[in-house]
Amino acid sequence: MSEKVFVFDTTLRDGEQAAGTRLGRREKMNIARQLARLRVDVIEAGYPNSSPEDFEAVQQIGQEIEGPAICALSRAVPADIEACGRALAKARRPRIHTGIGVSDIHVRGKFGDDKYGRTMAEKKAKLVEMARHAVTLARTFADDVEFYAEDSGRADPAYLFEMITAAIDAGATVVNIPDTTGYSVPEQYGALIRSLKENVPNIERATISVHCHNDLGLAVANSLAGLKAGARQVEGTINGIGERAGNAALEEVVMGLRTRGDYWGLHTDLDTREFYRTSRMVAESLGMIVPPNKAVIGANAFSHSSGIHVDGFLKDRETYEIMLPEHVGLAQSRVVLTARTGRAGLRDRLEKLGHALSHEELDRTYERFLKVADKKQEVFDEDLAAILADELHSVPETYKLEYLQFFSGTSAIPTASIRLRVGDVVKDGAAVGDGPVDAAYKALLVVVGRSVRLARYDIRAVTSGTEAIGEVTVVLETEGRRVTGRGASTDVVEASVKAYIDGLNKLAGL
Amino acid sequence: MSEKVFVFDTTLRDGEQAAGTRLGRREKMNIARQLARLRVDVIEAGYPNSSPEDFEAVQQIGQEIEGPAICALSRAVPADIEACGRALAKARRPRIHTGIGVSDIHVRGKFGDDKYGRTMAEKKAKLVEMARHAVTLARTFADDVEFYAEDSGRADPAYLFEMITAAIDAGATVVNIPDTTGYSVPEQYGALIRSLKENVPNIERATISVHCHNDLGLAVANSLAGLKAGARQVEGTINGIGERAGNAALEEVVMGLRTRGDYWGLHTDLDTREFYRTSRMVAESLGMIVPPNKAVIGANAFSHSSGIHVDGFLKDRETYEIMLPEHVGLAQSRVVLTARTGRAGLRDRLEKLGHALSHEELDRTYERFLKVADKKQEVFDEDLAAILADELHSVPETYKLEYLQFFSGTSAIPTASIRLRVGDVVKDGAAVGDGPVDAAYKALLVVVGRSVRLARYDIRAVTSGTEAIGEVTVVLETEGRRVTGRGASTDVVEASVKAYIDGLNKLAGL
Repeated sequence: MSEKVFVFDTTLRDGEQAAGTRLGRREKMNIARQLARLRVDVIEAGYPNSSPEDFEAVQQIGQEIEGPAICALSRAVPADIEACGRALAKARRPRIHTGIGVSDIHVRGKFGDDKYGRTMAEKKAKLVEMARHAVTLARTFADDVEFYAEDSGRADPAYLFEMITAAIDAGATVVNIPDTTGYSVPEQYGALIRSLKENVPNIERATISVHCHNDLGLAVANSLAGLKAGARQVEGTINGIGERAGNAALEEVVMGLRTRGDYWGLHTDLDTREFYRTSRMVAESLGMIVPPNKAVIGANAFSHSSGIHVDGFLKDRETYEIMLPEHVGLAQSRVVLTARTGRAGLRDRLEKLGHALSHEELDRTYERFLKVADKKQEVFDEDLAAILADELHSVPETYKLEYLQFFSGTSAIPTASIRLRVGDVVKDGAAVGDGPVDAAYKALLVVVGRSVRLARYDIRAVTSGTEAIGEVTVVLETEGRRVTGRGASTDVVEASVKAYIDGLNKLAGL
Repeated sequence: MSEKVFVFDTTLRDGEQAAGTRLGRREKMNIARQLARLRVDVIEAGYPNSSPEDFEAVQQIGQEIEGPAICALSRAVPADIEACGRALAKARRPRIHTGIGVSDIHVRGKFGDDKYGRTMAEKKAKLVEMARHAVTLARTFADDVEFYAEDSGRADPAYLFEMITAAIDAGATVVNIPDTTGYSVPEQYGALIRSLKENVPNIERATISVHCHNDLGLAVANSLAGLKAGARQVEGTINGIGERAGNAALEEVVMGLRTRGDYWGLHTDLDTREFYRTSRMVAESLGMIVPPNKAVIGANAFSHSSGIHVDGFLKDRETYEIMLPEHVGLAQSRVVLTARTGRAGLRDRLEKLGHALSHEELDRTYERFLKVADKKQEVFDEDLAAILADELHSVPETYKLEYLQFFSGTSAIPTASIRLRVGDVVKDGAAVGDGPVDAAYKALLVVVGRSVRLARYDIRAVTSGTEAIGEVTVVLETEGRRVTGRGASTDVVEASVKAYIDGLNKLAGL
């Protein structure tokens, strides 16, 4: 009899912690809506005490998203937990996630101060008390409280058992056993989960959750080993994004459970056909490209090219394929969007893609849609994503592009001129550079008159064909602050300039 | 006592089978040279009977690369094996890799013809005979013969044992147990390897090799499980590239063995400090981008951004890190290349990067290097890679760019004009488009007068800063043929045009 595994998505929390990424509230809402369509059981929406934006995003997701439980993260300190309580006050199905480090390295490294006790034994006893208080406090705000024992993968098992027993005793409904640094190997991690079932007397009162990191490429394997050993919740992110090498990729864990159900004897309730769409939305929102050889949802995951493979594949699909592309949402039949599709058709598609727009936003998007549809035979979902990303940014327009012009060539000096509106003032300037983008960026800095470092520049064509929309992502740094800017256009130079201005506007708004 | 694991790199064979990629002979030589610096034990250089280019690449690598054994792939048919024999005739340390499918799905799907027998039992007996003959024939060309039992992961174990016993009996020195479709889970794959040691009577005469695919994200975990169970050779690719979701990423397997040597009790002889450099070279040669969250060698693998993590990390590096970046070649001290570096300094650096240039090639590269160095404070290794990729392509220049000019802006009609030399004829043309790249590509097609589909367009800045070199990769398709073109320039439009022309030249040369 196959048992259900609960799926806990932390794309919006641990995923967003990936270096150099930052999601706005609207992007978080769109991703949360799509995660609900994917039918995950829990959405970890943010860490409310870390910033007002995170607080508001958690609040809004908790109120508006139907279906999944909405979870907020906190350390085992009252201010964090109270912020979670306030952010989730009106949530339909709130969960508070709190916890503390349990490995000796974490106890020593993060609680070195004497106020936590002078010896390791004193510190460890103190941390158990902090955990007990944290869970008790969290339970005053929510019936559903998850406790994480950070760096469980490197912890002394006896101490981990003590900590988990205390957390469940204080009311934790889920206990999360993170392999925070990706240090574990599957056999050991499975044994660790099994040992909890044998050594924590009240373990039957809580669900065990696995949360694995991918530093050694084992996050998915460790998660599966933990589930096999008795955990019934898995935590991860779409596309495996997250701190350092990222978290377990949910699409791999879930499709692994499904494809090898014979072995695992487990299932999830996800609508796996939504994986591809979710993957694209997350990749675009965060500017984190999915490589072609990404398992399950990469562009090549169902491609065959070598003679031996193609020959075998054509004789019998199963010689080289163990999943159907339809199962993850590839190659679905779909309505083709063209200039004749109309406003209702566009709204319907946008809603299917998880974007709920206001009347006025739909107007703006439709206008832009028509311009693109005039130039292209078919408007793809990816085109829509690029249009939306560009049109619906909710950043105040401190700098507004009024005019851009550039000239270049193999024997020309690349030259660009730019006119910006800054409040009521119009400023213009020109510069030469190593290419049209460089010239335009130099002209921008002439106009803006501030020093900004371009830490990253990525550009990609979001659909194939030369008429595709180019989407540029830049990471700008100044005085220790770091923002991501994006712009989309059929003109790569214009997209580059828009992205830079978007970043400047975000910096101006900080 | 830690035992040695032999590392078999198949980046140049299985890796190059990734859809949409193709390596030229020079690129293969450069990668092979770098793999030797990384100190892999075996380089699988190609499949000689698949094309004359593959034959020549295997031949040249076998003769020129010192250190690793050089291996060539074949099916269990005489023509393939004889081609391997000829290609490796002058190799220093030749190995022939031959084999046949063993799962029922492969036997039925690929050997359906009655000439292989009418019943499954007849077919299976016939395939064992073919394997025996293949190994016997291969041994007449090389003392070192590896046998692969394709799709072992889904095979009937009894038949697999029979096949492996026959192959070793015929003289196989290494037996490769591929999980061809990425179907296995670690526990099962480990058990399969263990069962070989128990059920194949002559197994002690051969080394067992693991070869895992990543369709469910388990290639690394399965490889490690196989090694733990007694295999002593691991096959994989740099960056995990390969068919579909790719092969086991060697950098993850090797760093896993190293970081958790306490658990595995195994080691390799690799110089892991060469991983980063190798990864970059492979990514650039194949146009397959490494995502920032790639384990071990991704840009974020050693990045920390969230407050909790950064705080812990600063208190004690080990709270969130289990490897040192230096161990994989990141953040090494290095000589800074500038315009004052000189020719000898450039040659030295290029040799360290694995590029051995002729006198004339060095002249061309140095000239280009000076132009870049004039514009940039420091020339990074990545800049050199872009320069080399652009300068040293050995594709005949059927089409040569003589002149490019373009003009665009927010209220301008993007316009480009292009002049090409085609043999002795100079042709020019102009076009308008949705942006300067589109205009230039349309102008190109006007000049060339043939119909080509742009299947993919990728562009990236290979170093940070606006003065960075942009590298464009395009995939062009026409009449079922598919090529990759690349171009590099500080002007993104010029880089785009160069990439397209490079692709056109490759198509013209097919």
